[in-house]
Amino acid sequence: MLGCGSVGSQVVRLLGEQADDLAARVGARVELAGVAVRRLDAPREVDVPADLLTTDAAALVARDDVDLVIEVIGGIEPARSLILSALENGASVVTANKALLAEDGPTLFEAAEKAGRDLYYEAAVAGAIPILRPLRESLAGDRVTRVLGIVNGTTNFILDKMDTSGAGFADALEEAQALGYAEADPTADVEGFDAAAKAAILASLAFHSRVTAADVHREGITDVSAGDVRSAREMGSVVKLLAIAELRPTPEGDDAVSVRVHPAMIPRSHPLASVREAYNAVFVESEAAGQLMFYGPGAGGSPTASAVLGDLVTVARNHRQGTRGVGESAYADRAVLPMGETRTRYHVAIDVDDRAGVLAAVAQAFAEQGVSIQTVRQEGRGNDAQLVVVSHEATDAALAATVDKLRDMEIVREVTSVMRVEGTEE
Amino acid sequence: MLGCGSVGSQVVRLLGEQADDLAARVGARVELAGVAVRRLDAPREVDVPADLLTTDAAALVARDDVDLVIEVIGGIEPARSLILSALENGASVVTANKALLAEDGPTLFEAAEKAGRDLYYEAAVAGAIPILRPLRESLAGDRVTRVLGIVNGTTNFILDKMDTSGAGFADALEEAQALGYAEADPTADVEGFDAAAKAAILASLAFHSRVTAADVHREGITDVSAGDVRSAREMGSVVKLLAIAELRPTPEGDDAVSVRVHPAMIPRSHPLASVREAYNAVFVESEAAGQLMFYGPGAGGSPTASAVLGDLVTVARNHRQGTRGVGESAYADRAVLPMGETRTRYHVAIDVDDRAGVLAAVAQAFAEQGVSIQTVRQEGRGNDAQLVVVSHEATDAALAATVDKLRDMEIVREVTSVMRVEGTEE
Repeated sequence: MLGCGSVGSQVVRLLGEQADDLAARVGARVELAGVAVRRLDAPREVDVPADLLTTDAAALVARDDVDLVIEVIGGIEPARSLILSALENGASVVTANKALLAEDGPTLFEAAEKAGRDLYYEAAVAGAIPILRPLRESLAGDRVTRVLGIVNGTTNFILDKMDTSGAGFADALEEAQALGYAEADPTADVEGFDAAAKAAILASLAFHSRVTAADVHREGITDVSAGDVRSAREMGSVVKLLAIAELRPTPEGDDAVSVRVHPAMIPRSHPLASVREAYNAVFVESEAAGQLMFYGPGAGGSPTASAVLGDLVTVARNHRQGTRGVGESAYADRAVLPMGETRTRYHVAIDVDDRAGVLAAVAQAFAEQGVSIQTVRQEGRGNDAQLVVVSHEATDAALAATVDKLRDMEIVREVTSVMRVEGTEE
Repeated sequence: MLGCGSVGSQVVRLLGEQADDLAARVGARVELAGVAVRRLDAPREVDVPADLLTTDAAALVARDDVDLVIEVIGGIEPARSLILSALENGASVVTANKALLAEDGPTLFEAAEKAGRDLYYEAAVAGAIPILRPLRESLAGDRVTRVLGIVNGTTNFILDKMDTSGAGFADALEEAQALGYAEADPTADVEGFDAAAKAAILASLAFHSRVTAADVHREGITDVSAGDVRSAREMGSVVKLLAIAELRPTPEGDDAVSVRVHPAMIPRSHPLASVREAYNAVFVESEAAGQLMFYGPGAGGSPTASAVLGDLVTVARNHRQGTRGVGESAYADRAVLPMGETRTRYHVAIDVDDRAGVLAAVAQAFAEQGVSIQTVRQEGRGNDAQLVVVSHEATDAALAATVDKLRDMEIVREVTSVMRVEGTEE
């Protein structure tokens, strides 16, 4: 095992406590050969026998008697080099490393293929929730068309707090940090980098194509205001940070992959709307199965260790049988649709002068971009009025251009909220 | 393929429409060798080439060129004989037959083991929802302690209707029949036989033990009254037909399996409470992963076909690799706890005379059986009063004896509602 932080410690604990069950399920005892750590004397949640600890990770993965390497260091290097070296040496690998898989998955998959070994990574997306195996095995006979996921617990906690208490982003973040749901430097979570890595992994599996973090359009939640959340509430919706991967027709009529992470309003009746606090959930739409949802804890040492050990049992059983599980499946090789060409829907709230012709002018701004309007709500407030417009689907570029135009119009005092809408209209 | 009803027709359709994708995912083209039906000229949802249809199922499964048999006939015979014959002839089997698996699973598993072939059955429980594979593979490194499932769409539709409209059972059943959610003879659904079969399958997988339909304590929903549903609503709960499989300590301190199907009140805040209409969901608690939920359509030709084809891809891939997937895992060999010894909680509503000493007498009836009370709500209504008691956990036998005693008491006019409570107290 490489790394012994909160996930690694729980893996060690479970390997000990459930040794007999694991042996019965694998068909052979699983023995911890060594644990590579940065500092031998660091405090740990679990007692690791001193003779198993080493600071020489490279030597550990090169050992002849190691059949399987669990990588729970995280980050790009040295994780990548160690995984590649483990595969070259004939070991299979179980990893929880979403950042590495999203950045450079194909290199790892090719190395696993070449070595004839397994590379499993259920723990990399949505912690304990079994989602990768259902996507790549249970739904292998179906055609997945869309995956909508709440895959980052920190941002869901913050947005849930803003929804229930009316707090602004800064206050909700502070509370999340105080409770241990957000890190001191929350950038990876609140700017959507973590969710984007998971979106890339989900898109790759769902659509049998290579999708990397660089393909993901990414917007975080730092600009989500108390007003946005209130505006969502007024229309029976809630704001969630969604990882979205869907098949969308290109102008040429092929299926391309749209993959993105951004805050969006979804109706409160949508199954994802009731995902509270730091929980995760992944909603999958497919041609034959219809709508499925997978829900559970998306992080934490013990849940993530559960996913690691599930992979370990499979990989160890494959090893004993001299076989491999499903490798990378990228045969479909679909293109990624640029965000501007992706069809989305916008919710736009605008403060305007309350006088005749205003609604007509605003409607004209939408029409000029070919955007059709689904609903408009107008509310007078003395001299000014608030207009809330929800569009039908249009290209994201046309919707963004419409908002730019609105901001420039003299009768528009302020565009107070702009947010995409998901989970309703096809 | 054996059978070509609503599931079989959709399997044929998808085998055709997704042939290229299936070929890429399996690594070889999947060719339909034949379809055994009862009548060659029966109307079907899909066109099957006439030369593929046969009425001789036994000859079809005996053919040398058949590598894989899909059984979607249902029922015990001739499905069992055909599956056994297919395995003996060296074919692997994918089946959706919950009744057969729950009644005689071990015979099938042993035949598959002996033949060195696969027997997969994801479609047998909760239609398209991937739940068996997560239980037997994703959670193989964890210790599952409880499975709570809404696994019968018909009864969930009826109970949901009773909850939302206040209708009684008979009216709700009639509506379900009119909409095609219930069959003309609804016995298998409303008496809980269908859910009990699924409970046995879930318990076997979750606890690595052999559990058959005969082990499942079964109560249907025909006695659930509008009053029960109202009483649940008044305490912030909802009535659901639950399939429950859990590890419970025996008096000797071992872990035994409690497996049962009965209506129960669960709090509206529980994730299962929001499962509406004919949807299914399975809630899983495990030591390391915590609480997980799997949600989706639990029946229907196309969703069930999705599960069949997911298994088909895995089994076909195994066949090509000359390997097998996970077979039966029954090493833990746990005993099944009799219902009377299982610890449950009761909600009891009683009409009593409204006079001094009544509450004391009722409380005494609980105390005599060693049952401790969690909450009591009393409501005067002129001469009489209604008492609603929710107990703490006690053995089901002690709770049942308490209710019998209450019915015999002179001050008790009527026990108006008795129902178990799930999803709260540990």
